[in-house]
Amino acid sequence: MTVRASLPVRASQHESTALMMPEDANTLGHVFGGVVLALVDKTAVVCAMRHARHQCVTVSVDRVEFREPIQVGELVILKASVNLAHRTSMEVGVRVEAEDLRTGERRHTNSCYLTFVAIGADGTPATVPTLVAETPEQQRREAAAAARRQRRLAERDAEAGLITGDA
Amino acid sequence: MTVRASLPVRASQHESTALMMPEDANTLGHVFGGVVLALVDKTAVVCAMRHARHQCVTVSVDRVEFREPIQVGELVILKASVNLAHRTSMEVGVRVEAEDLRTGERRHTNSCYLTFVAIGADGTPATVPTLVAETPEQQRREAAAAARRQRRLAERDAEAGLITGDA
Amino acid sequence: MTVRASLPVRASQHESTALMMPEDANTLGHVFGGVVLALVDKTAVVCAMRHARHQCVTVSVDRVEFREPIQVGELVILKASVNLAHRTSMEVGVRVEAEDLRTGERRHTNSCYLTFVAIGADGTPATVPTLVAETPEQQRREAAAAARRQRRLAERDAEAGLITGDA
Amino acid sequence: MTVRASLPVRASQHESTALMMPEDANTLGHVFGGVVLALVDKTAVVCAMRHARHQCVTVSVDRVEFREPIQVGELVILKASVNLAHRTSMEVGVRVEAEDLRTGERRHTNSCYLTFVAIGADGTPATVPTLVAETPEQQRREAAAAARRQRRLAERDAEAGLITGDA
Amino acid sequence: MTVRASLPVRASQHESTALMMPEDANTLGHVFGGVVLALVDKTAVVCAMRHARHQCVTVSVDRVEFREPIQVGELVILKASVNLAHRTSMEVGVRVEAEDLRTGERRHTNSCYLTFVAIGADGTPATVPTLVAETPEQQRREAAAAARRQRRLAERDAEAGLITGDA
Amino acid sequence: MTVRASLPVRASQHESTALMMPEDANTLGHVFGGVVLALVDKTAVVCAMRHARHQCVTVSVDRVEFREPIQVGELVILKASVNLAHRTSMEVGVRVEAEDLRTGERRHTNSCYLTFVAIGADGTPATVPTLVAETPEQQRREAAAAARRQRRLAERDAEAGLITGDA
Repeated sequence: MTVRASLPVRASQHESTALMMPEDANTLGHVFGGVVLALVDKTAVVCAMRHARHQCVTVSVDRVEFREPIQVGELVILKASVNLAHRTSMEVGVRVEAEDLRTGERRHTNSCYLTFVAIGADGTPATVPTLVAETPEQQRREAAAAARRQRRLAERDAEAGLITGDA
Repeated sequence: MTVRASLPVRASQHESTALMMPEDANTLGHVFGGVVLALVDKTAVVCAMRHARHQCVTVSVDRVEFREPIQVGELVILKASVNLAHRTSMEVGVRVEAEDLRTGERRHTNSCYLTFVAIGADGTPATVPTLVAETPEQQRREAAAAARRQRRLAERDAEAGLITGDA
Repeated sequence: MTVRASLPVRASQHESTALMMPEDANTLGHVFGGVVLALVDKTAVVCAMRHARHQCVTVSVDRVEFREPIQVGELVILKASVNLAHRTSMEVGVRVEAEDLRTGERRHTNSCYLTFVAIGADGTPATVPTLVAETPEQQRREAAAAARRQRRLAERDAEAGLITGDA
Repeated sequence: MTVRASLPVRASQHESTALMMPEDANTLGHVFGGVVLALVDKTAVVCAMRHARHQCVTVSVDRVEFREPIQVGELVILKASVNLAHRTSMEVGVRVEAEDLRTGERRHTNSCYLTFVAIGADGTPATVPTLVAETPEQQRREAAAAARRQRRLAERDAEAGLITGDA
Repeated sequence: MTVRASLPVRASQHESTALMMPEDANTLGHVFGGVVLALVDKTAVVCAMRHARHQCVTVSVDRVEFREPIQVGELVILKASVNLAHRTSMEVGVRVEAEDLRTGERRHTNSCYLTFVAIGADGTPATVPTLVAETPEQQRREAAAAARRQRRLAERDAEAGLITGDA
Repeated sequence: MTVRASLPVRASQHESTALMMPEDANTLGHVFGGVVLALVDKTAVVCAMRHARHQCVTVSVDRVEFREPIQVGELVILKASVNLAHRTSMEVGVRVEAEDLRTGERRHTNSCYLTFVAIGADGTPATVPTLVAETPEQQRREAAAAARRQRRLAERDAEAGLITGDA
């Protein structure tokens, strides 16, 4: 019998950054939401792969609010943590910040929660290590992620009960 | 007194497509979720701008489920409609399909709901035309979008009542 | 004996769009011709592959006129149809339009005719389905495409008769 | 009275190269025609700008034949010359070659003729220097370009006489 | 009289990451040196701008050794620190590591030293804050950077004394 | 016994060019150093592969000075030559020039020396042809490259003697 491995949250935490360029924005200089979402996914998948030690695919992205626009020339900083590890899936949280490099001022622009599934060499879902939340903050996040997971499953069931005429 | 203009849903509907290339995917050949989200935002903003006749910025993207992976070599088809127009904001729905070009088979992979705000020349929110839902299907979507809007506002209020220790 | 399949024009028609960004243009804000040609080829190949149900390679692009410049911020709309299907080759016509998203005004900027050859799994040309032109407009286009095909073959023969000191 | 400047062909000749990468090709490894056309336009505009000493816009690209596929990993070499200078327009010829870097073998894949118009600071067409064809080869090309120009004008007149139901 | 500001090393330290994709590598799967150098410059300039609170331009990159190849699929991690601040220039050191995401194994692939000059709003060099090296390690790096600076100036003088027939 | 092939310098010389676009520069319009370095590597590797007739990997890039900024809209011209061929490695020199296309004025902005190793089909270093320096200029460059090689080896030995606490 194989014992399932166990990894602390800090072992897979990942931070990435990107300098916003003119091609990332509309003519008002506001960075497109889609550019931020692509960075969020790219950052989160590294975090998920580090925990799973396998390729991972995104299965959902929770609602994202773009609280305030990010401008061309600003540095976007993305911090990703695994919040919850289920058998073959994980919730990864990504905190997005924007930094004005001339003043050093940094502000929180949004946060996102993504769910990934690990895929083994045979193309089917693979078991991931259990997650060890070591700090009170990590334990709080794990509980919040478990609650979000319940809500997602409930919403999926509710939707399945409808005849959906999609977007 | 200026009379607020009025536009039918069909006047701003927009369809776009993209052929998935190796750089859009991981080594398993699965297209990254972030690539799809960037296409969704890019398609939806065209639809929003057509209705608003102004630059538009994304203020939120509702939860997106990636039901089944899209493969390199497939054609992604994105169909966007304004579902609801409020004073200065709009909900745009995007239906994503993947087509296997060798068989012509097409499947629905996911649907997303995005909220945009129109921005006038002075950089502040601008009033958008009212939306005319002409068909029963469009009226059903408008009602569903209004319900989603209420839910979003309720959730935002609920969150504002918490001390949030973010991702 | 295999009966050669037959497909109507509408089964492979394809439309794509692209929002013109600063990196697509010179410092006057005029979109580069090469950017438009790359979009034309990318749109046409999808249309050809849909008809052929095989990979397709571009064998020629007829003369393209850029009647009027396209500007950064405009939406380019490309509509592709198979005009003529020969044994292993097809002519695809692409109509290019530019839309000013703030006014909704749309203008025809140019049209192109491309020839593709279908390539089978063994790397050699593959037979494509015959084309069924169902409307008078489609029949007119099929006849025009057949005439262009004759002219191309005649020109190729004429060129072959010259000692060409190339560009 | 300003005397119109005069420049030899060699003063604006331009060569560029590009190594073909996986993202430039379909799954058979054949480089997309649109990728080659974008490189052709990018190379030709440099040549046109060097002669005109102004920004230039592409007004037409003559029929291009893709005689044989270019493969991923090959080096594409593009050689551009002004063949003919009219008052505010120029024909630029581009010869495209592909080199297999492991054998050093190089083959001619196609040639293209593009017409550019020079644009002055006020946004209207600007006069370009006259062209001095110094060698017999350059003189041959200038005569061939003048013949192509007559043919293009004749074809445009012929088309103007038709009610065109476009692609 | 303005007192020149003073900033600790940690205030401008910067880390970035990039997942290596097929388009970043040759057909052997080895990432191109130029891709790494572009990432190094992009990471270092953020660090320089954070210290200087101005736009910065690269004035030199010291010799870089690529000790061992980086593979497609690996995560590149770049860690940048200001090592030395002169009046209007700074030396930034960048340590490059590659991580195999499936094993979590990380190795040091190379280190680079870049010199930047801060540019003020008027386009001329701008004074930067003095640097406070707080730890013994930071002090060691500052001394090593000062020695490299002397060597660079000496080499530049030596080169100026030669008639250089360049590459 | 296989006789090692021999190739003249001119057989592998390579020139490339690139038009600098807004996405290549900071908001002052200065092209990023990293963009130039990526072009230098991309140009040099073609030259190395032409000489070696094998895939080549960059093993070092000597110190690069960016003497004067290159502006958006300028044409960068890169000229690469093999300066020295050792058993399995080569030094390639790249001269970088910037051309203002409106005036035709061209200036030397910098020069770089890169070392490559040829890699055979089995993934190990492969022997490259000997280099024939035919002109006095080429012989001068070969001698300078041999001196740089000695200096690099000496510096590497010196570094190996230190306990290096890296950037």
